[in-house]
Amino acid sequence: MKLIRYGETGKERPGVILKDGTRRDVSSFVKDFDESFFEDDGIKRLNDWLKTNSEKLPVVNNSIRLGPPVCKPSKIICVGLNYAKHAAESNAALPSEPIIFFKAPSALSGPNDDIIIPKNSKKTDWEVELAVIIGKRALYVDESEALNYVAGYALHNDISEREFQLERSGQWVKGKSADSFAPIGPFLATKDEILDPHNLNLWLKLNGKTMQSSNTSDLIFNVPVLVSYISQFMSLVPGDIISTGTPSGVGLGLKPNRYLVPGDIVELGIDGLGTAVQKVRTWESK
Amino acid sequence: MKLIRYGETGKERPGVILKDGTRRDVSSFVKDFDESFFEDDGIKRLNDWLKTNSEKLPVVNNSIRLGPPVCKPSKIICVGLNYAKHAAESNAALPSEPIIFFKAPSALSGPNDDIIIPKNSKKTDWEVELAVIIGKRALYVDESEALNYVAGYALHNDISEREFQLERSGQWVKGKSADSFAPIGPFLATKDEILDPHNLNLWLKLNGKTMQSSNTSDLIFNVPVLVSYISQFMSLVPGDIISTGTPSGVGLGLKPNRYLVPGDIVELGIDGLGTAVQKVRTWESK
Repeated sequence: MKLIRYGETGKERPGVILKDGTRRDVSSFVKDFDESFFEDDGIKRLNDWLKTNSEKLPVVNNSIRLGPPVCKPSKIICVGLNYAKHAAESNAALPSEPIIFFKAPSALSGPNDDIIIPKNSKKTDWEVELAVIIGKRALYVDESEALNYVAGYALHNDISEREFQLERSGQWVKGKSADSFAPIGPFLATKDEILDPHNLNLWLKLNGKTMQSSNTSDLIFNVPVLVSYISQFMSLVPGDIISTGTPSGVGLGLKPNRYLVPGDIVELGIDGLGTAVQKVRTWESK
Repeated sequence: MKLIRYGETGKERPGVILKDGTRRDVSSFVKDFDESFFEDDGIKRLNDWLKTNSEKLPVVNNSIRLGPPVCKPSKIICVGLNYAKHAAESNAALPSEPIIFFKAPSALSGPNDDIIIPKNSKKTDWEVELAVIIGKRALYVDESEALNYVAGYALHNDISEREFQLERSGQWVKGKSADSFAPIGPFLATKDEILDPHNLNLWLKLNGKTMQSSNTSDLIFNVPVLVSYISQFMSLVPGDIISTGTPSGVGLGLKPNRYLVPGDIVELGIDGLGTAVQKVRTWESK
């Protein structure tokens, strides 16, 4: 099943993409894809309900904006330096255990929304990533059980301001949390759709030129390891997003560095999780 | 006005503490003290409504548990090393600009809930802090305007696991986010109650012995500076919590180090923001 949220920013409604590719509204079944939806076994209930109701549902026009496919997650947990070549291009050592940091949930945006270069930014960068959405509250979970706590997967561009992240004292969160820095989607693919999350090609193009191209088989710490590991430090809540890290090919790693400028077009995709296109603009412009 | 949330964990209802000290339920006026309450000028509306309704409201018994006074904030933003003596005891340089990091909102707990030592923790530490609650969406706010975006203040114990924070690769978030690591309250004091947020004594006792005792006049970066500064990097959302940093006297700074053990009693307070008592236990025990 492919879950979408569509409509104006902040007023999104829940929907699904059916097997025939049509988008349908499911707001008659569920208010939103939020913590209580996932917690309450919503994916299974929605799937059952669709078997007899999908054809009667209102069609959502393909021209309507998509929002992030999850409503107000309690946290976005990102994994740093989780592909060996990306650690090398960042001049960082391979981590001995997962490096994690948070992005502000206020950074969430739709998959095709503009990337907004923040005020005073000179180093806004891209990072295509596989995101994992949590389906069940998880604390001290074993690796062997970890996938039971996963609701599904989505495409994520972990936009990063490198000066804010690395040159402004302290912690990375400063460079990870600006508005529009977490475009997610086009859809959340439920777990059953992705037979092997560790064999997915992922790629990102800048103005048509391929910048990142890798496969999730290159992840240093894979999905069950990450879910289990993070659950040793905090409770994972239904709807929480874990973004698993980016492969090499970011602007920071290029010689000379190449950061986003207004008018740039970023396209990205992951096998089975769709594609997204993001136009870059300044924060002053609309 | 003093806002409280009371009842079982996860099922808290909104209330107020009246001038005579009685607690009253206000769930007939507002569903909860969440983003939409603050955003919708809820503090002013509630204050007006109480003028004619407060005496009729159901009394909340003083024996009933208090929860955190804010419902599901989108983020908890903490400030590191914001008192000079604490930076020194942590063997850290004085920051040239604010150091910020996030705590997981899933760490929130009530002011008198137990502090739960996480699995495999040996270095669970205390940090009394002044917390600021955001009342209005804030982005690129000037210092001179910053207090207009503040709803009020609360007492916060920024519990920290020092090994997870400092010795487990990467970012501090790992040591800041365990369940029960953000007891907040007893109440949110609206801004009008705190004439000068930069002249408040704050203190913390461990088993009756004073460990931390300082005044918010010693903050390196004060409240308007912090609100303005953080808003340069991300949007602040109504209900978001900014915790302004801790003074010296944490367990990490003692020689030898002293960390929390089951049975310890932590008491803390800030002028005008009440006091809290927290008992320490392991994660296995109830």
